[in-house]
Amino acid sequence: MSSQPQPAITWREDVLPSDVAGIERLTTDSGFFRPDEVAIAAELADERLAKGPASGYHFIFAQQGGDTLGYACYGPIACTLHSWDLFWIAVRNDLRGQGLGGQIMALVEQRVAFAGGERLYVETSSRPLYRPTRHFYQSRGYNMLAVLEDFYAPGDAKMIYAKTLPVMNRR
Amino acid sequence: MSSQPQPAITWREDVLPSDVAGIERLTTDSGFFRPDEVAIAAELADERLAKGPASGYHFIFAQQGGDTLGYACYGPIACTLHSWDLFWIAVRNDLRGQGLGGQIMALVEQRVAFAGGERLYVETSSRPLYRPTRHFYQSRGYNMLAVLEDFYAPGDAKMIYAKTLPVMNRR
Repeated sequence: MSSQPQPAITWREDVLPSDVAGIERLTTDSGFFRPDEVAIAAELADERLAKGPASGYHFIFAQQGGDTLGYACYGPIACTLHSWDLFWIAVRNDLRGQGLGGQIMALVEQRVAFAGGERLYVETSSRPLYRPTRHFYQSRGYNMLAVLEDFYAPGDAKMIYAKTLPVMNRR
Repeated sequence: MSSQPQPAITWREDVLPSDVAGIERLTTDSGFFRPDEVAIAAELADERLAKGPASGYHFIFAQQGGDTLGYACYGPIACTLHSWDLFWIAVRNDLRGQGLGGQIMALVEQRVAFAGGERLYVETSSRPLYRPTRHFYQSRGYNMLAVLEDFYAPGDAKMIYAKTLPVMNRR
């Protein structure tokens, strides 16, 4: 371990071609995502690179020098006025518990509210692996709205949470 | 009105380039979809034409001669084992109440079960306009699992229904 000071964390919203592999690595290393989920997380970055903002996928990356420490992918929900989805959020496994996920989440909420979003939805699994994930959302003001039993697999329910955001830009 | 016998209804699963405009017409004429919803319904056919079955969008069309009387679009839900979504179902407005929607629905359920799907999800709005839609799902064994208040717009909730299908092909 080096005792040299780490460069500061910087934030980035544009998506680079290298982010596709970066997201694969980050979501794989986190231990929270299956290979099929990793593939979809990477696909959304691909889609964003291909279609730009019209893809409907927005990103926030936490960078330290050339390293991506964490990221989120979110976007407006089609056919709704004010509802947005947080599709993915992941933090490098060795950095968990240091508040980076909370910082990413707060930035996403600001960006969504700025864009006219009034509700941010997030879904996760009922499996024990995701207990910290559920605690993370609940502690940030997300309310559990629904449990869809056996959604992901037998015995693995989908839990739907949402947070009402302050109105910044009424659409 | 002609008294000539109508040609029989035939069923079709492949998607033709003309279906994009056909779906626009059908969903617009039904009176149940807003322009942004019509656009998305048509987009899914476009996506299917571009990517084939890999798009994840499956279709069933009820045809009478060259006319499309109704259709549905459905597909597997990514990152789930056995869960499928019914994205769209529409019947020509002048044919409502004659059982065509029910026939389309039954065919979708068969196709989903055949492909290994065990649950079919469908979402609709809480608005009065969709009372017949909600009745349609409920009368076909769909259970209301969740109500997400203000999801589509203030005062316009998303209602989530699902039906458990008989296991035909365990995946």
